[in-house]
Amino acid sequence: MARANSRDRELRERAAAVIPGGMYGHQSVALLPDDYPQYFERGEGAHIWDVDGQRYLDLMCAYGPNLFGYANPQIDAAFVRQLGLGDTLTGPTALMVELAEAFVALIGHADWAMFCKNGTDATTMALTTARAHTKRKTVVRAKGAYHGAAPWCVPRPTGTIQTDRAYQITYDYNDVASLEAAVAEAGDDLACIFAAPFKHDAFIDQAAPDLAYARRARELADRTEALLVVDDVRAGLRVARDCSWAKIGVQPDLSTYGKCVANGHALSVLVGSDKARAAASKIYVTGSFWYQAAPMAAAIETLGLVRDTDYLERINALGERLRDGLAERASAAGFGLRQTGPVTMPLFLFDDDPDLRKGFCFSSAMLDRGVYVHPWHNMFLCAAMTDRDIDDALNAAEGAFGELKRQAGGLPPVEKLAFLATGGSR
Amino acid sequence: MARANSRDRELRERAAAVIPGGMYGHQSVALLPDDYPQYFERGEGAHIWDVDGQRYLDLMCAYGPNLFGYANPQIDAAFVRQLGLGDTLTGPTALMVELAEAFVALIGHADWAMFCKNGTDATTMALTTARAHTKRKTVVRAKGAYHGAAPWCVPRPTGTIQTDRAYQITYDYNDVASLEAAVAEAGDDLACIFAAPFKHDAFIDQAAPDLAYARRARELADRTEALLVVDDVRAGLRVARDCSWAKIGVQPDLSTYGKCVANGHALSVLVGSDKARAAASKIYVTGSFWYQAAPMAAAIETLGLVRDTDYLERINALGERLRDGLAERASAAGFGLRQTGPVTMPLFLFDDDPDLRKGFCFSSAMLDRGVYVHPWHNMFLCAAMTDRDIDDALNAAEGAFGELKRQAGGLPPVEKLAFLATGGSR
Repeated sequence: MARANSRDRELRERAAAVIPGGMYGHQSVALLPDDYPQYFERGEGAHIWDVDGQRYLDLMCAYGPNLFGYANPQIDAAFVRQLGLGDTLTGPTALMVELAEAFVALIGHADWAMFCKNGTDATTMALTTARAHTKRKTVVRAKGAYHGAAPWCVPRPTGTIQTDRAYQITYDYNDVASLEAAVAEAGDDLACIFAAPFKHDAFIDQAAPDLAYARRARELADRTEALLVVDDVRAGLRVARDCSWAKIGVQPDLSTYGKCVANGHALSVLVGSDKARAAASKIYVTGSFWYQAAPMAAAIETLGLVRDTDYLERINALGERLRDGLAERASAAGFGLRQTGPVTMPLFLFDDDPDLRKGFCFSSAMLDRGVYVHPWHNMFLCAAMTDRDIDDALNAAEGAFGELKRQAGGLPPVEKLAFLATGGSR
Repeated sequence: MARANSRDRELRERAAAVIPGGMYGHQSVALLPDDYPQYFERGEGAHIWDVDGQRYLDLMCAYGPNLFGYANPQIDAAFVRQLGLGDTLTGPTALMVELAEAFVALIGHADWAMFCKNGTDATTMALTTARAHTKRKTVVRAKGAYHGAAPWCVPRPTGTIQTDRAYQITYDYNDVASLEAAVAEAGDDLACIFAAPFKHDAFIDQAAPDLAYARRARELADRTEALLVVDDVRAGLRVARDCSWAKIGVQPDLSTYGKCVANGHALSVLVGSDKARAAASKIYVTGSFWYQAAPMAAAIETLGLVRDTDYLERINALGERLRDGLAERASAAGFGLRQTGPVTMPLFLFDDDPDLRKGFCFSSAMLDRGVYVHPWHNMFLCAAMTDRDIDDALNAAEGAFGELKRQAGGLPPVEKLAFLATGGSR
């Protein structure tokens, strides 16, 4: 069954004329199967509709921002109410103080908060704060970890220059010896250690943080009087009602949030402990829209739902149901499927699938059956999903595994991901 | 008459506990008179209300974003309508293509557009695009010009490092010889020349672009095959219905917009000519909220008003009326008042006022009379203002000049601006 795509095609053609490359950034479908739609019309709860009217259960949740459902009535009502009063004004509203108090109450290690727009703003502010605090330069961070798209951390360096990434040393996530070696190499110039809350790199299996590694990062930061930063932009609030590392008992000095903290409204956050407060007060950071009141109203509502509902237990249960059901169906169909990451942020990869041709075939077959999955990036569950939605996903998966089985012998290579097989980079 | 400030004081105390330094960025009132409110409650049209209920005619317009009035019914209706359909989704909507088409139609030199959140995102993308296009490193930019708050361009370097600003050469705005020397120094490594549309540095008189300087910048970029960038984030749409330099007949290769392009909703833009399209398609830039549909709906509505109404002629006429009226009243009161910048983005400074004590006294007296002005940053007019509002401002000014005259003999030094008198920096 071929899905309708005439409106999507038309928009792509128009876009090719007025947007470089037709689309850019993480929501470009250039590295997804050819039949993935680029343009959408609508979102509600757990579902999205493409511009050709097809509805999907959306397991990407906007790459994270959708935690309580698209167009959540309660959150958006708070947003719209505040929009009518005032949003971008000549100064902040009282909501900025209330929201900072809410973050300090929620995040165990946080004594203060600062607000910005992009996740990258928050991670860059963390780096700047650490350098201001220590009066040192070097940042130690995990190889391949994504911390944003500024020149200092961008995954693909075209147009940036070597000096943008000066004073950086990388280590292998979860590898204590490698972390120790990086810290030793930094010597007396270590400003901070950056860590993702778990290994959530694209294209590869995800990995939970090893407790010994997380503890060692804390010890090394303490011993060198550097700061420990947990970049929770992607995972925050889907692992814990706190910094994700609170779950394993390791408290950073700085942590960053974004994506879902205002359920899709533009807001990101740097929080820190008292130790880093003076330095954070001295850095110069700002943006035209950083003090917008309406996204702050939405965030206060979102944090209220985080605090007062069982959303986390529910999305964990949904995630378990999805993982178990997929494992069962993959196995019944004779496929080795590796499911990694927290169940609320799953990634699945097929065994023996170097250029992801099985993953592409399966994902397209899921899409045909009304479920939007991603073949190489972690996905996201949201609290608007129900058991029924997961059952829909599992029924779709049963059909998709069958489809994959029928096609498995003759799958074409995935030219656009050829770099994976050769170990190259995007 | 002392204005009420108990709620503002209370919020500042609470903020001191949970926000480093109590507040940060350009909307901090730390360098404004002590009686300026930090927190606001509401905005409508040309007016804002502080948290203690006082109403002001707002000559800051949120530092630019308010072009068609706070809570503009037409623009916000488009925003809210789209919010109900979908805002941050798993991909963009058709509005992204429509908005790119609208920018290409509006900005003379533009063949394409890319969207982001902060003005700093847009200027950083311009730099990255220029480096990708030329495969060179050096940027030549005006001394003291503000192009954002990323480490490469931040006005106060605490927490950033020298290498963040590697390969930069500065020149004096409007000084052809200085520009030529900077370009010569860059040699065969020149990636781009950055220029503000006019000199709009804080604390000093503004200056229109000298035609010889602007033309020379274009020639030098052409001769060296570097790109010319006009950073129109602050001034865009308040000088022309096009890139601000279109008015003087000089077309850049790249220009940046933000602040008012969605009338206060978070959106900024890089546009470019075909020459830079391939490079722009190769840089990696993205953000969690860059493809939000609701701010794009607001921007399409805003650009419609730009195209179809006489807003620019109206704010120019209002600006002339304000400038003439202020000049008359200053002179009648015996003060030398230098009014510079486009009349829609005025800055006024008193003669013989090195630490701005006169400016502070006058600004506070304006605030007492219900008009919010800024003593050292350019202000902004908006299309929601009326002749009546300007008359209110002029009446307030008459009283404020009188107040200043009474106090002029015994004005206290402005300790917080002492750095100005000593030539230091913030």
